[in-house]
Amino acid sequence: MKAGRQVRVTVWNENVHEQREESVKKIYPRGMHTPIVDGVRRELGGDVTVRVATLAEPEHGLTDEVLDETDVLTWWGHAAHDQVSDDVVERVHARVLAGMGLVALHSAHKSKIFMRLMGTTCNLRWRSDPGGEREVVWTVNPGHPTAAGVPQPIVIPHQEMYGEFFDIPQPDDLVFISSFEGGEVFRSGCCFTRGLGRIFYFGPGDQEFPVYHQPEVQRVIANAVAWCADVARANDEPTTRTGNAQRNWYLDGD
Amino acid sequence: MKAGRQVRVTVWNENVHEQREESVKKIYPRGMHTPIVDGVRRELGGDVTVRVATLAEPEHGLTDEVLDETDVLTWWGHAAHDQVSDDVVERVHARVLAGMGLVALHSAHKSKIFMRLMGTTCNLRWRSDPGGEREVVWTVNPGHPTAAGVPQPIVIPHQEMYGEFFDIPQPDDLVFISSFEGGEVFRSGCCFTRGLGRIFYFGPGDQEFPVYHQPEVQRVIANAVAWCADVARANDEPTTRTGNAQRNWYLDGD
Amino acid sequence: MKAGRQVRVTVWNENVHEQREESVKKIYPRGMHTPIVDGVRRELGGDVTVRVATLAEPEHGLTDEVLDETDVLTWWGHAAHDQVSDDVVERVHARVLAGMGLVALHSAHKSKIFMRLMGTTCNLRWRSDPGGEREVVWTVNPGHPTAAGVPQPIVIPHQEMYGEFFDIPQPDDLVFISSFEGGEVFRSGCCFTRGLGRIFYFGPGDQEFPVYHQPEVQRVIANAVAWCADVARANDEPTTRTGNAQRNWYLDGD
Amino acid sequence: MKAGRQVRVTVWNENVHEQREESVKKIYPRGMHTPIVDGVRRELGGDVTVRVATLAEPEHGLTDEVLDETDVLTWWGHAAHDQVSDDVVERVHARVLAGMGLVALHSAHKSKIFMRLMGTTCNLRWRSDPGGEREVVWTVNPGHPTAAGVPQPIVIPHQEMYGEFFDIPQPDDLVFISSFEGGEVFRSGCCFTRGLGRIFYFGPGDQEFPVYHQPEVQRVIANAVAWCADVARANDEPTTRTGNAQRNWYLDGD
Repeated sequence: MKAGRQVRVTVWNENVHEQREESVKKIYPRGMHTPIVDGVRRELGGDVTVRVATLAEPEHGLTDEVLDETDVLTWWGHAAHDQVSDDVVERVHARVLAGMGLVALHSAHKSKIFMRLMGTTCNLRWRSDPGGEREVVWTVNPGHPTAAGVPQPIVIPHQEMYGEFFDIPQPDDLVFISSFEGGEVFRSGCCFTRGLGRIFYFGPGDQEFPVYHQPEVQRVIANAVAWCADVARANDEPTTRTGNAQRNWYLDGD
Repeated sequence: MKAGRQVRVTVWNENVHEQREESVKKIYPRGMHTPIVDGVRRELGGDVTVRVATLAEPEHGLTDEVLDETDVLTWWGHAAHDQVSDDVVERVHARVLAGMGLVALHSAHKSKIFMRLMGTTCNLRWRSDPGGEREVVWTVNPGHPTAAGVPQPIVIPHQEMYGEFFDIPQPDDLVFISSFEGGEVFRSGCCFTRGLGRIFYFGPGDQEFPVYHQPEVQRVIANAVAWCADVARANDEPTTRTGNAQRNWYLDGD
Repeated sequence: MKAGRQVRVTVWNENVHEQREESVKKIYPRGMHTPIVDGVRRELGGDVTVRVATLAEPEHGLTDEVLDETDVLTWWGHAAHDQVSDDVVERVHARVLAGMGLVALHSAHKSKIFMRLMGTTCNLRWRSDPGGEREVVWTVNPGHPTAAGVPQPIVIPHQEMYGEFFDIPQPDDLVFISSFEGGEVFRSGCCFTRGLGRIFYFGPGDQEFPVYHQPEVQRVIANAVAWCADVARANDEPTTRTGNAQRNWYLDGD
Repeated sequence: MKAGRQVRVTVWNENVHEQREESVKKIYPRGMHTPIVDGVRRELGGDVTVRVATLAEPEHGLTDEVLDETDVLTWWGHAAHDQVSDDVVERVHARVLAGMGLVALHSAHKSKIFMRLMGTTCNLRWRSDPGGEREVVWTVNPGHPTAAGVPQPIVIPHQEMYGEFFDIPQPDDLVFISSFEGGEVFRSGCCFTRGLGRIFYFGPGDQEFPVYHQPEVQRVIANAVAWCADVARANDEPTTRTGNAQRNWYLDGD
């Protein structure tokens, strides 16, 4: 994160499970977005401003005005991926390519926006045992900014299993790999650049377990926000407006 | 290319410029696909069978039956990207993720299928000088199979300029970089894996210049076909059908 | 592997544990190299010729003459890394950069040649429980040639634990990730290109357990040999002999 | 660069050409390191402290004490690569793996430390025309922090030609590609991570031309310094000291 620049974060939450399932309401009485917001604020302090947006709001809370003021968007969705409007997806997609960061959390692997950016099915193995199983998250790139201050390993006592093969493009940088009690492995911390924007996928987090209350998990999400915000302002927009410039155009006036 | 396995290639051509522009008809009287087919046959001989499909055919010649018999699809399009039906695009997309190779040629950077797989705008700089300008194609990964038998550099006397920034995900392997007389550079030979399938983007080739008649260019395309065909038959389909398997499922019956 | 070209493989084995430890002799009475050779022959058949070389031979069996006739070298070492002469290491290093493949097995992560090529410490976590622990090897790149015909997952009943952080450069392609009973994970199948040569690191295999007798493990090693052999003959040697060529040298005589 | 943390930079210069060649002395009367220092200070201001070290000093100015206080080291060498002591090279190598950044400039591609980290020959094409030739540096990753504030393209009027094939491992991120008047191309801005440390190679800069006086070139070097400094403090040292920990060690006392 650049010194002297405040990062504007929008935490997006589908916020559906929390409304209709008692088990989830108990763990996340104020919505899953609340501990996410708390963690980002605790870790990044005055360097960020954070707002929340949810599916139920008009345009899912992701109007042009909101996105104009968003440097990094975090995304949690699961039960209602299909209810996200295609217009909003295209809008967010364009913003990411123009430099807005995206932190995709857990089941966001099947969100329209993540699949749109990856170009693949983003399918994976999964198992929902009652009670879940232990996930152990290992850092495989300890110098990477998203691993700063994160213990080796992070132990998540109860979690839904997500396993390989995870159908994503090979990440530009792979930072975390998880194992599960059942023996499966998962590329759980993946960095991508698309257009001018950075994308971080992070596996941990399920509505049935209090994963987002865990400080180490919050730390990774905050790190991911800071990393996604650390992009250059484009010196070259990926548009065709420069098409058919005259030869040696860049020498003129130089 | 695996010993003992014949690669089935479908050469797809939009075949629009050749029908309506005299200048193009002169260079490619039998369509741009013809020298592409000739080159693949000359270089790969009995290791391949080649068929042609074009936009004007029903389902653009890319029916399920044809794709069932296609290991690698080459794609040239430019004037009529929008006329390619979304259904066909989704069908081809699914096939690539399931292991079919795709060789995207020149202006195919803006084809629906390539943009769908990349997840980005795939925009680039370009310049169409009458007479074109010299493109020099440099190998930056000389051990890569797509560079086999290719001179260092390939000189293309007259070509449309394609330049950076080219808005694609960072390639898994970068094999060729071109320079142009005007001083621009271009990542002109890019390898990607998406799902189980391999994708090769190759920059040279324009309807206004006889680029596809050049044996070195044909050689690269043939190499790309062979490289795209060299994928393993999946041991793990990227579907969710294995979701919620019991813990230690892989030990049962092992 | 190219049709019509026979790959010449040299299986190198330190062959020290087998001579001095009864427990190892029992598992590998004819040396660890024997099941490796058997596996490569069974899987690749007439496409390969295989020879063996060991530490005790003059120049460790890796004379210029032998290397002249080697397309791919497999390497197992552990107890005697320091006894490998620096001259031989430099000789092998130069060959890899010139296009010879290298398959580095298990404890070869600390061999002089592997560290020389990687430029890092190649250190890792490890644990040698008596009896070992279960390793489960997952394919994370199912279209990659090194995964061909490999079950998802491979189960290795007893194995020494190798875990992250494994101090290697980020692989060009990551194909396998292992988990261990203790919960650790390991990037156990890693592809690198250095110069014109391909390198494959494969984690499984320890002198105390019969891992190299397992057909799935042999299959991966054979796949790796074939993949390492699939390099282009250089069109551009990485030497300085072309230094100071005149401008437009590549147009002369074209 | 992290807010609130001052980056300590050591600018290392061989400083040999400047002493013995009039042509160089004229361009760089106070040594090539001076405009490099000036540029880093101008761009990064109070966020950095900068010191200079040169070959002629005891231990080349790179004692343990100096390295203890160095977050990022920039390196320029050419005429005297061989005079750099192997001890110093090993010391710097260990520091990079432990997290110190390295910015390797121009002919530093053949420095012992850069070749040691890369594991390859690092050879390239080159041409020293009297008067040099124009280099045009294109950004191919416009969101990358090293491209921040850099014009598209940078034009360097007179420069020695460096061209492909450049025998380096494929960079983790490729940010700049140059073309030269003679038509050659060069991967001139390359990012690598080795161990915990970041390495940036930047092509422009030659003793015969005033390249390091150019503000855009200084800007890239300053960006590279900031990017190299942006690493996490290790949560997992790449040492074997954790070898043979008991199973589930990470659960004990957690």
